[in-house]
Amino acid sequence: MKAFYGDLKLGILGGGQLGRMLIQQAINYNVTIKVLDPDPEAPCRKLCDEFTAGSLGDYETVYNFGKTVDLLTIEIEKVNVDALEQLEKEGVVVYPQPRIIRLIQDKGLQKQFFKENDIPTADFQIISSIEQLKQSHIPFPYIQKLRRDGYDGKGVYKVTDEAALDKAFTAPSLVEKLIDFEKEIAVIVARNDNGEVKCFPMVEMEFNPEANLVEFLIAPSMLPFEIHQEAENIAKRIAESLKIVGLLAVEMFLDKHGRILVNELAPRPHNSGHQTIEGNTVSQFEQHLRAIFNQPLGNTDCLNNAIMVNVLGEAGYEGPAVYQGIEKILNKPGVYIHLYGKALTKPFRKMGHVTIVDADREKAIEKARFVQATLKVIA
Amino acid sequence: MKAFYGDLKLGILGGGQLGRMLIQQAINYNVTIKVLDPDPEAPCRKLCDEFTAGSLGDYETVYNFGKTVDLLTIEIEKVNVDALEQLEKEGVVVYPQPRIIRLIQDKGLQKQFFKENDIPTADFQIISSIEQLKQSHIPFPYIQKLRRDGYDGKGVYKVTDEAALDKAFTAPSLVEKLIDFEKEIAVIVARNDNGEVKCFPMVEMEFNPEANLVEFLIAPSMLPFEIHQEAENIAKRIAESLKIVGLLAVEMFLDKHGRILVNELAPRPHNSGHQTIEGNTVSQFEQHLRAIFNQPLGNTDCLNNAIMVNVLGEAGYEGPAVYQGIEKILNKPGVYIHLYGKALTKPFRKMGHVTIVDADREKAIEKARFVQATLKVIA
Repeated sequence: MKAFYGDLKLGILGGGQLGRMLIQQAINYNVTIKVLDPDPEAPCRKLCDEFTAGSLGDYETVYNFGKTVDLLTIEIEKVNVDALEQLEKEGVVVYPQPRIIRLIQDKGLQKQFFKENDIPTADFQIISSIEQLKQSHIPFPYIQKLRRDGYDGKGVYKVTDEAALDKAFTAPSLVEKLIDFEKEIAVIVARNDNGEVKCFPMVEMEFNPEANLVEFLIAPSMLPFEIHQEAENIAKRIAESLKIVGLLAVEMFLDKHGRILVNELAPRPHNSGHQTIEGNTVSQFEQHLRAIFNQPLGNTDCLNNAIMVNVLGEAGYEGPAVYQGIEKILNKPGVYIHLYGKALTKPFRKMGHVTIVDADREKAIEKARFVQATLKVIA
Repeated sequence: MKAFYGDLKLGILGGGQLGRMLIQQAINYNVTIKVLDPDPEAPCRKLCDEFTAGSLGDYETVYNFGKTVDLLTIEIEKVNVDALEQLEKEGVVVYPQPRIIRLIQDKGLQKQFFKENDIPTADFQIISSIEQLKQSHIPFPYIQKLRRDGYDGKGVYKVTDEAALDKAFTAPSLVEKLIDFEKEIAVIVARNDNGEVKCFPMVEMEFNPEANLVEFLIAPSMLPFEIHQEAENIAKRIAESLKIVGLLAVEMFLDKHGRILVNELAPRPHNSGHQTIEGNTVSQFEQHLRAIFNQPLGNTDCLNNAIMVNVLGEAGYEGPAVYQGIEKILNKPGVYIHLYGKALTKPFRKMGHVTIVDADREKAIEKARFVQATLKVIA
């Protein structure tokens, strides 16, 4: 591979906010950046050397795009893997490796991988059709997940009783024991081609039981040291089994008995690592670049308590986005805004995020609640 | 002025590294960014919504560019101020204000401003011609500075004796007493239109007496508290006298008697503030945006010791840039590379900078020396 600075052409499949933040960091390395995304108005469109509007799922489009770069990476895993495998054969470096993207695209294969590699995960069964599901007599309640194309909570269905089966997914899926979990936690791990592996400190999601929603992310987690250690060991074991090059986000549950169960993987920068931009020695975006450029991985220490709040389109509004409350939140020290350059808002669309950094954890949480109550995206 | 996020069009005069780092930060605010620079290969060319190649000194070019934006700022002060004044009359918001750019473009006017406002500075005389200089009988040695267009040490001449007068500048200039200084120090101050004023902690330049060159910048300075306080007070007084909106970099000397003397001003992000990207709660670029958007200024505290090393083109090399030693320096924790996207190197051209952050000051200095010895830009 060419030296990563200077004349290296880096291609990114996907031009959303993850690509945007990756580019903000990649600017420091002088690489030529090309982006492919189906949306001609994608957040990255004006921030790269070359933007191509085209389907990420189409073989020809991905192949032709890939032929113009030296190194190809992704910011979304729903891409045409056949094209990536062909590009790899023809000498384009593709990180993460296509075989890993293929595995992670299919939640069934992912679960089998966990099982084969002794990675703790909730018990599951693979179901190929609705008939098979109806005949399986799994004790209610349980969770049904589509094997493919689930995203941001879509493709997940809670089967509470016999009647609920009528609305169950008909496509190939897996069913999973409902976990009575205490916390959602996540570890982002990076591996480079030299085999160096480094984790970011474990983070936890703060759950709002009233709204039944993840409210925000806290880094580092305040759970006991043993939990950190175990979660990071699991993440490292997965990265090493896969021999991934790049970032791997490992989402996990901590159940009421203190057991960690891996939920799912994302082989790319991830929502659970945005706070690393201000909160850690290197950010997840810098680390992904170092990993795919096969450079020494950066120190991942937390500089401070950091809380990440997603900025979502307000329910009931759709159209050109209007932001309310920015001045008020910038008035607080240690509050950082990241807007994603999306012209149109719709309910719950991810329009940006805010990171709050404070040496005093309680103050950080207080400010996070203020940000949530104050910053609104309407139309 | 329009709300600063969403549909505001921000114009930047100059598309070099300062503009590039300003854009990296401005991406977080969704503004539309347009850049004017004479070099079609300028570092910002691919990172903005619209890039125009054209002269910054030409009235029509600057005026026409300015008419397409809501808010205009600069990353270099050598721009056509007549055009800016006309744009201001016609309702374009120009920060820093054109009258301040006009003042700072002329080192003679700058010095008179210092004198009128009791800002401590080296004694000086304004000289309109070489004949006047020869007749003035100022005691040798002294410094002659061109009133206009000096840059990065150009336009400065040390007049050691009668014979040296033959090579003195013939254009309007000022002569200044040679200062036997102990340290070069700098404070970057920001002011917004609400009148809020905030300084970044004072930094100092580490001088290499052997090479007779500034070796690197250390933040924060380790000079006594009283010096910090005085330097920051001077910077605030200047910002308030000028009523500037935006950043103002104030370069100062500390003489052998412990007196501070202001050397010169730059009304924009500045080389002496690059380390704020990793070293401070907010960076100078974020602060400049907050100031010109009239948002609350950010907290400027240092997070850690930070050292900034300029990455200059190696003497003896000219042509397409090749970077040596990057992997070795990335191997050290707390080392951050910023390359400026310049295709061609030449001796002493600013090709990038490296920031080194470490809680242990001595270790930071050690790493900075390693970076200087290891990272080379050749052709």
